[in-house]
Amino acid sequence: MRKEAIYHRPKNNFAYAYDKETLHIVLQTKKDDMKTVQLIFGDPYNWKNDEWQSETNSMVKTGSTDFHDYWFIAIRPPYKRLRYAFICSNESETCFYGESGIFDNPPKDIANYFCFPFLNAVDVFQAPDWVRDTIWYQIFPERFANGDKNLNPEGALPWGSTDPSTTNFFGGDFQGIMNHLDHLESLGITGIYFTPIFKAYSNHKYDTIDYMEIDPHFGDKHTFKKLVQACHDRGIRVMLDAVFNHSGYYFPPFQDVLENQAQSKYKDWFHIWNFPVVTEPQANYDTFGFVASMPKLNTENQEVKDYLLKVARYWIEEFDIDGWRLDVANEVDHSFWHDFRRTVKEAKPDAYILGEIWHDSMPWLQGDQFDAVMNYPFTNGVIDFIAKNTIAATTFKNVITKVLHMYPRNVNEVAFNLLDSHDTPRILTIANENIDRIKLLYLFQFSFSGTPCIYYGDEIGMSGGHDPDCRACMEWDEENQNRELFTYVQGLIRLRKTEPLFGNDASFRFLYADDNTNTIAYEKYDEQKRLIFLLNAGEKEANVSNTCIFKATEQVNEWSISSLSNGVKKECINISEPLTVPALAYRVFESKK
Amino acid sequence: MRKEAIYHRPKNNFAYAYDKETLHIVLQTKKDDMKTVQLIFGDPYNWKNDEWQSETNSMVKTGSTDFHDYWFIAIRPPYKRLRYAFICSNESETCFYGESGIFDNPPKDIANYFCFPFLNAVDVFQAPDWVRDTIWYQIFPERFANGDKNLNPEGALPWGSTDPSTTNFFGGDFQGIMNHLDHLESLGITGIYFTPIFKAYSNHKYDTIDYMEIDPHFGDKHTFKKLVQACHDRGIRVMLDAVFNHSGYYFPPFQDVLENQAQSKYKDWFHIWNFPVVTEPQANYDTFGFVASMPKLNTENQEVKDYLLKVARYWIEEFDIDGWRLDVANEVDHSFWHDFRRTVKEAKPDAYILGEIWHDSMPWLQGDQFDAVMNYPFTNGVIDFIAKNTIAATTFKNVITKVLHMYPRNVNEVAFNLLDSHDTPRILTIANENIDRIKLLYLFQFSFSGTPCIYYGDEIGMSGGHDPDCRACMEWDEENQNRELFTYVQGLIRLRKTEPLFGNDASFRFLYADDNTNTIAYEKYDEQKRLIFLLNAGEKEANVSNTCIFKATEQVNEWSISSLSNGVKKECINISEPLTVPALAYRVFESKK
Repeated sequence: MRKEAIYHRPKNNFAYAYDKETLHIVLQTKKDDMKTVQLIFGDPYNWKNDEWQSETNSMVKTGSTDFHDYWFIAIRPPYKRLRYAFICSNESETCFYGESGIFDNPPKDIANYFCFPFLNAVDVFQAPDWVRDTIWYQIFPERFANGDKNLNPEGALPWGSTDPSTTNFFGGDFQGIMNHLDHLESLGITGIYFTPIFKAYSNHKYDTIDYMEIDPHFGDKHTFKKLVQACHDRGIRVMLDAVFNHSGYYFPPFQDVLENQAQSKYKDWFHIWNFPVVTEPQANYDTFGFVASMPKLNTENQEVKDYLLKVARYWIEEFDIDGWRLDVANEVDHSFWHDFRRTVKEAKPDAYILGEIWHDSMPWLQGDQFDAVMNYPFTNGVIDFIAKNTIAATTFKNVITKVLHMYPRNVNEVAFNLLDSHDTPRILTIANENIDRIKLLYLFQFSFSGTPCIYYGDEIGMSGGHDPDCRACMEWDEENQNRELFTYVQGLIRLRKTEPLFGNDASFRFLYADDNTNTIAYEKYDEQKRLIFLLNAGEKEANVSNTCIFKATEQVNEWSISSLSNGVKKECINISEPLTVPALAYRVFESKK
Repeated sequence: MRKEAIYHRPKNNFAYAYDKETLHIVLQTKKDDMKTVQLIFGDPYNWKNDEWQSETNSMVKTGSTDFHDYWFIAIRPPYKRLRYAFICSNESETCFYGESGIFDNPPKDIANYFCFPFLNAVDVFQAPDWVRDTIWYQIFPERFANGDKNLNPEGALPWGSTDPSTTNFFGGDFQGIMNHLDHLESLGITGIYFTPIFKAYSNHKYDTIDYMEIDPHFGDKHTFKKLVQACHDRGIRVMLDAVFNHSGYYFPPFQDVLENQAQSKYKDWFHIWNFPVVTEPQANYDTFGFVASMPKLNTENQEVKDYLLKVARYWIEEFDIDGWRLDVANEVDHSFWHDFRRTVKEAKPDAYILGEIWHDSMPWLQGDQFDAVMNYPFTNGVIDFIAKNTIAATTFKNVITKVLHMYPRNVNEVAFNLLDSHDTPRILTIANENIDRIKLLYLFQFSFSGTPCIYYGDEIGMSGGHDPDCRACMEWDEENQNRELFTYVQGLIRLRKTEPLFGNDASFRFLYADDNTNTIAYEKYDEQKRLIFLLNAGEKEANVSNTCIFKATEQVNEWSISSLSNGVKKECINISEPLTVPALAYRVFESKK
């Protein structure tokens, strides 16, 4: 037994409140080391040392990675308090694992057990209810549609006339978005994430000049109010981008510092190392990355805090926006985000808070800061396997299993799952323009737990390399759009809305992963039914053993979703026949329990 | 290589800000598996994929438990940002370990590395500066001294005339404490933790009736103000006990609920399951344990919050107290404690917040809730080894090493290290009245990192079993006091104040543990000097190999601290001679580097 690999620590992803009454408990052990794991538990104030048999429950193995197995149990302690430990067994040995360590037999003293002292409702992680079912769409406003030429920036280029650069403008604006809401509604999306819309210098607007003003090239507050209303009328939520880690160079407080130096009343709004402040050859103040024109805001300063929290409140209260996406959220202090959450939830209890964090984000997802983060670990996994084919099927299974066990389930259910964004190449380019791979990617993204997001234009087959290439003008000429892809994505979204097993009501589990053909199978299941997905990400036809996927007695229907334009056709199949999947293709099956 | 046992996760105890500029990074590996561990790192915005050799640093093994080694490094990232991973090597193999997993070679993509995104000063755990050097003394006011007979509760018994019971009273009060401050000052303590002093029903006062009033049997606000002033005049800080998890039965809002039931305006102050509220046969509301007379307060309710935070502020602002000890702190919601910390630190920036938590407390010690917890894992370890002799020397070494690696170093430096309390038997009773063991216990407690606390009367040899036995009247008759023990503790406190290596300025490390004799050796060291402690917790003389303890070329002085009444005598010793320690004895050595 590899006792050194057993790991558990309360709170975080290993023991957490799933809802006001339910605790989830997870144990990590070495892969294939344990045959069974039991939870041994009791109320801390009713500790029956000699009656273990009545208070143990079997845990279920929910997944394996290259090195570890994960064991899970949900439990509802009657008095919301729990002391617990684990009994791990394999053929040759049994051991007890509790807070004080590993023993041959369960010790009597309660101090040896892990503790979840009390399930306080206010501490339970809870994202807004609507988020679970949202289909996101990301819009980069300067490049979505030009609806009002009067607002064009000086020197704006004709729409799509040339490649995007770091400095050029094409005149995208709010009116353009409003003109094309039919496209979005027809696609089926229910939430828009707008990259920044506040007054700023660049085309990307991440260098804010005034957080209280709309960028005049996009419109004004009146147009924005109309835009939000128009979205809401179509059942689409609106999320704005809050760039609170840093300001732009032309942010008046920073200009004041440059002008008045140590005498500036804004000198504590930034992290200035020494005076005089200089921007060259190297900034002598904290910046975003090493970008001198993006001075880091001192979010520990009360005036800065008050200002930014006022901003957070203002756009909710005045314009009824539904959420904030937080740029470079990981570099801002936790203390600020605590206050931010309170402010936002006071203004609108079901507002959504999404952090931009590319790495492990557990410290921000404890229920007191963010509702979700941009799930780049998911992104990296699906890109490597399905788009780029650089990792094998079992590695992919391991990566996704790890992603699923990194956070609590209620966190995973609202994870913001993206394939690409304004910060990455477009998925079609990453997939070397292979539409079959794109279809597999979308199928996986839309059938996975969490909430999918589409980067504008991906749905009609736009390509583009690294920034600024990925920020090209939206293609509105249907002749140049991949309408078949649009219909396919539209169909997946429809399935997501109509088939509960596609969404967050079902659990996800891998069934099969074959490195020879790069084929995977997974299921989404609830108590009544299961959907089985077979994806071949390899370049040759795969023959899959049906016994890995189906039980001998099962009644199985196959879904025909090749076009999806007319919904799903279901056809009974003979599961004793060999199961083949063509290269870069998929099959979907349904089975009632 | 046991790759499955490698563990690290940023924040918590594995990666944390030690101060505004320094990160500490810790890795867990299987015991004796790795020969070296290197940190491989860089700035996330200046990622040099091909220049690793200039950016790796060796980590140091800081301790081992039964299953694991811990590796440590302190690092000061110039721009306060860090991406990092680990290179683990033994004779046969080398591997890379980062956020995305374990690989044979360092991957180039930054996404595979762990991230500490930004060292924000406000998020750094920081206890008040004065706490590191404080020697605590716990007073149970009803039993310390009766200084004003006029305040005696009805039926109060003559001082010490009988054993304490759960219901009897002896008239201890504030005046009694003031009368005996000489005793405390002479002992050398610099902080008093008072169990509750607010108006309550019982003798222990944990069943509060009025959080805004002094219990009339102890004195009044005027006397309390005098007491705080008298303590401050002698350089003694004052910490009060906040029982915010639950109220007492006679707390007027609870009485109002019993009387007016669902019509009570206080019905949401508690967690009531259904009406009518009953206390028998079982309470139908949340309680502390199963005690119907201690209804759990609903700290999620804004009125309750406001009330309790007003209490927290009031006793600081009006009486200048220096800290709050929080009863049953683990069962109150984190959200409340966040607000509590802000309120307290606003009222007095260097006020101290100590939580009563008996188990792993990492979630409360992130810098945004408590400054310390009552360190019962430490207590359990020293009791089992030194007092009760139920665990062997190596087990003790493992337990203490685990305690030290459970939390960040800045947390350990202010850990509240106690041997006993009003909630446990007295240490002399636990040690089966063996004064030699008590001396070893104190020596370890006072030379360990963290802040020691003495339970009233222990210093003069009081004994007592489980509550209520451990709450006997303080023995003031010097004839009945163990004055030799008093002098010994007094001497240890003097050493703690005068020898920097005794306190938190030095690091702690085990040198030796022998299960045959139950002897341990450890050192406290800084850059100039080290102190070596040799403790024999066994019943027979031990011969210790000097090569385990000393280097051949070292100049070593032995400290004579057998009485300590006249300070320490230092005597040069010949380290090539055999090193013996009598049963239940200790030796202390000093060596300059």
